[in-house]
Amino acid sequence: MDVGFLGLGIMGKAMALNLLRSGFRVTVWNRTLSKCQGLVEHGASMGETPAAVVSKSKYTIAMLADPNAALSVVFEKGGVLEQICEGKGYIDMSTVDADTSLKINEAITNKGGKFLEAPVSGSKKPAEDGQLIILAAGEKELYDAAIPAFDVLGKKSFFLGSVGNGANMKLVVNMVMGSMMNAFSEGLSLAGSSGLSQQTFLDDLGAIANPMFKLKGPAMIQSSYPPAFPLKHQQKDMRLALALGDENAVSMPVAAAANEAFKKARSLGLGDLDFSAVHEIVKVTGSSGEAK
Amino acid sequence: MDVGFLGLGIMGKAMALNLLRSGFRVTVWNRTLSKCQGLVEHGASMGETPAAVVSKSKYTIAMLADPNAALSVVFEKGGVLEQICEGKGYIDMSTVDADTSLKINEAITNKGGKFLEAPVSGSKKPAEDGQLIILAAGEKELYDAAIPAFDVLGKKSFFLGSVGNGANMKLVVNMVMGSMMNAFSEGLSLAGSSGLSQQTFLDDLGAIANPMFKLKGPAMIQSSYPPAFPLKHQQKDMRLALALGDENAVSMPVAAAANEAFKKARSLGLGDLDFSAVHEIVKVTGSSGEAK
Amino acid sequence: MDVGFLGLGIMGKAMALNLLRSGFRVTVWNRTLSKCQGLVEHGASMGETPAAVVSKSKYTIAMLADPNAALSVVFEKGGVLEQICEGKGYIDMSTVDADTSLKINEAITNKGGKFLEAPVSGSKKPAEDGQLIILAAGEKELYDAAIPAFDVLGKKSFFLGSVGNGANMKLVVNMVMGSMMNAFSEGLSLAGSSGLSQQTFLDDLGAIANPMFKLKGPAMIQSSYPPAFPLKHQQKDMRLALALGDENAVSMPVAAAANEAFKKARSLGLGDLDFSAVHEIVKVTGSSGEAK
Amino acid sequence: MDVGFLGLGIMGKAMALNLLRSGFRVTVWNRTLSKCQGLVEHGASMGETPAAVVSKSKYTIAMLADPNAALSVVFEKGGVLEQICEGKGYIDMSTVDADTSLKINEAITNKGGKFLEAPVSGSKKPAEDGQLIILAAGEKELYDAAIPAFDVLGKKSFFLGSVGNGANMKLVVNMVMGSMMNAFSEGLSLAGSSGLSQQTFLDDLGAIANPMFKLKGPAMIQSSYPPAFPLKHQQKDMRLALALGDENAVSMPVAAAANEAFKKARSLGLGDLDFSAVHEIVKVTGSSGEAK
Repeated sequence: MDVGFLGLGIMGKAMALNLLRSGFRVTVWNRTLSKCQGLVEHGASMGETPAAVVSKSKYTIAMLADPNAALSVVFEKGGVLEQICEGKGYIDMSTVDADTSLKINEAITNKGGKFLEAPVSGSKKPAEDGQLIILAAGEKELYDAAIPAFDVLGKKSFFLGSVGNGANMKLVVNMVMGSMMNAFSEGLSLAGSSGLSQQTFLDDLGAIANPMFKLKGPAMIQSSYPPAFPLKHQQKDMRLALALGDENAVSMPVAAAANEAFKKARSLGLGDLDFSAVHEIVKVTGSSGEAK
Repeated sequence: MDVGFLGLGIMGKAMALNLLRSGFRVTVWNRTLSKCQGLVEHGASMGETPAAVVSKSKYTIAMLADPNAALSVVFEKGGVLEQICEGKGYIDMSTVDADTSLKINEAITNKGGKFLEAPVSGSKKPAEDGQLIILAAGEKELYDAAIPAFDVLGKKSFFLGSVGNGANMKLVVNMVMGSMMNAFSEGLSLAGSSGLSQQTFLDDLGAIANPMFKLKGPAMIQSSYPPAFPLKHQQKDMRLALALGDENAVSMPVAAAANEAFKKARSLGLGDLDFSAVHEIVKVTGSSGEAK
Repeated sequence: MDVGFLGLGIMGKAMALNLLRSGFRVTVWNRTLSKCQGLVEHGASMGETPAAVVSKSKYTIAMLADPNAALSVVFEKGGVLEQICEGKGYIDMSTVDADTSLKINEAITNKGGKFLEAPVSGSKKPAEDGQLIILAAGEKELYDAAIPAFDVLGKKSFFLGSVGNGANMKLVVNMVMGSMMNAFSEGLSLAGSSGLSQQTFLDDLGAIANPMFKLKGPAMIQSSYPPAFPLKHQQKDMRLALALGDENAVSMPVAAAANEAFKKARSLGLGDLDFSAVHEIVKVTGSSGEAK
Repeated sequence: MDVGFLGLGIMGKAMALNLLRSGFRVTVWNRTLSKCQGLVEHGASMGETPAAVVSKSKYTIAMLADPNAALSVVFEKGGVLEQICEGKGYIDMSTVDADTSLKINEAITNKGGKFLEAPVSGSKKPAEDGQLIILAAGEKELYDAAIPAFDVLGKKSFFLGSVGNGANMKLVVNMVMGSMMNAFSEGLSLAGSSGLSQQTFLDDLGAIANPMFKLKGPAMIQSSYPPAFPLKHQQKDMRLALALGDENAVSMPVAAAANEAFKKARSLGLGDLDFSAVHEIVKVTGSSGEAK
């Protein structure tokens, strides 16, 4: 199977490598072309432009940094649009908003191509291990055709219907994640301020224990927030999720309170740290707060 | 080893049975004495009063419904206080507030006895399977002596220091649980109102997946809230946790927002349903909420 | 002084009449031209199109229903743009968002005209009485030229600097107003549920008494919400104010909580009532909410 | 008319003086007796103890610092209880919680005396000017008898029914006041961060303008919070009001959010400043909060 792959950042490189290892013939492209070298050593071909990759591939997967990069790769000179056509598919696995997806979808389908948005849950490690969760939406036929690739890249994939649903589902999950992070930080702070062991609190979560608390908790106790998912991106996702709720008149007071906490953290310059750095504004730092 | 066991409700019965099966010699008591029969058939002795149980046991475990029951069993005629003395221990595994624990602790230690509060995480099933999590606090020597019993009753036990810490740790965990339930309900509601599949949302939680969401989610989608942990008790715990935070000047806006949502649910008469019934006030029921 | 006046709704008609009475020569236009008749009887001239009005006037004031109307009157065939030119001014007193103002400003100034946004605080009665508060922003020279008219229309006018500031100031004030309405509704509800007289609560506000509470309070006690400022517009303003806060990383948890309450009211179909109808979701309606 | 007056702090001294000037014969007492001198110069008698004052007076008014002082003056040796009896009345105008009022009420009425709680709205200036608002509750007959004194001390008095209602009404009003202060601080902060004039914002409040904003606003802009009503007391009142709401299942998310903000301020050591110092945690101080 001939597939294209655009974008060889941390995630994309690991994903393309997994495809190669599973026997796919992969043509790769990256804005800094030299980054293709590692993949070529593992058997990949290289395309000079996104268009060149598309011309050689049944379908092309993109894994790009942000909405701007996702748009450029499609619309710019030498971009995907120049070669996409009937019989070819384009699968954007970048995390972008629904509007960006819809714009790309319109351009691709106007040329007769098929489009799928397919954002993922999971970061570096799951990408390397082929353990991502894939939230696809768009052209069902293309989804079915891509299943062999998705089976390599992820442990699960979902088809969510029309374009935009993938982006929105990711927003909803990230919103819950952000509220949970705040709830967790409040619990850690209350435990600490009440003379309880924060470590025991971590060990004692029972039915609410989850991988995120397990991973981030010990670092948070140490006031350490190495950026995995930057706080400013988390806050942006909460803002967008709340806006989605506003459109549909869904009242979400807990998410709103969490959003304001992230915003406070952002105002204090913590936006580039991990989103667990919201703990910095939750935990008690003063020494004069006794109840009177 | 001779141990006493007071209180044979759903939890207590399962726990006493596990002790018997593991070779403990157990003397049981229950306010409705006829409930002892099932345990007697498995080899337990029966005491006519709490005092009678204490007189025959090295240490006595209690698993009672609420603070009032916990106080009665100690202070009433025929209660624990009449026989507790140097060399004997009393372990209250009921869920009570720190004040109740402190009151019992004072009375027991004044008589020369040793006291341990040891509330648990987990309900019926973990009790039957000996998979509870035990949060003990008080007399360390008694904790050490009780470890063989705790190993039978639970999968983990913690010693948290002075009396009151067990009760407070349970409050902190329940507070986080309550905030998470609200965050989850908001996510479910937003998914549903945005035209996304709620079931896919459940399948797609990745690093924030946890046993509580997995257990309650499918029922919540069906608007079903069979009471496992009643909403009015959850709200009471959030209130107490916020009060604990107030004492220590810990600002917890997410827990406060969640508490108000539970309170709203209570005001609508949902207090006796499971705490997941907060979903009833989060989910969108109207049909006229489009943004204008 | 020759001034134009576009838009003769409830507000606009009262304002134009005040100008006539104070000796201004006014040329009026309204989409439904027949509405001009009342003003003509008081001495106004009539223009067939916005452009016709502009051609005859030193500066033209507009008072239109919403951003769409404000844009149409400028950009459509026969619109303001066709006749605006150096030496002429255009003053939009409609309530619109900053983006709409900026768009109109750009078009007007490209033609050499001068532009002022000048939204007002106050509704029908203050308009009739010439007691509006005017928040002007844009071309200072035009502001100075318009002061004689502003003195007729309002009791106070402010010059706030560059275009957009008028719209934003109105958002900030409305945001505080929305939070206050929620705070007030909570107080009313708590008084009622605690067995206190709601009327005495109204009489007893001391240093926080204000015209809004005085006007809306008695009706709210009667569950009456005749629409003066529709709830859906209030909620929209809170959303926009929170978005403005997000841009500037201002954390506003009280406004966020109030916004979610308005959103809940919207989801229950109360969007067309007065914004005081948020009281419907705050007040306690159930009978089974006693604390346990 | 012979009245007693206990407590000559800032408020009490001004109030007793007003009574004297209006022709009441007043017997005064203060824990530091030397403070009576100023009143004696204006014609007051002095009592050596609260009991001595009560023995000489038809009814006795108290204006004390806090619940502890209110209890001491009644229950200690030489206290009110020693001389209160049928035919005498005791009016406590201190700000205390409902429980304290109920305790004093029970003791007074057991001795055959009549009791009225009568907390006030207003601080030093209104006390001096006889412009307080008086929230009386308890024995209606005593209220009627005290009206001549209340007419001197305040501009308005209300009779609110049974003991406790006065304290609770004050809590409700203070809760709304606390939420409004937060709403106002958020508005000030948003104005400032959005490049708008904070002074113009103050001038532009229209229907939501009120004496509190007018008094505190200019100081808040200067980050000045001279303590009139200490933040820690405001936060305590919000906590108590939320507890009252909890008893009655009134969900109050805006008050809850405001309470958490005050708590945050308290945790940063601002508890002894004026409650407007919550502005310190609302206003944006960082310089790196731009949206990304």
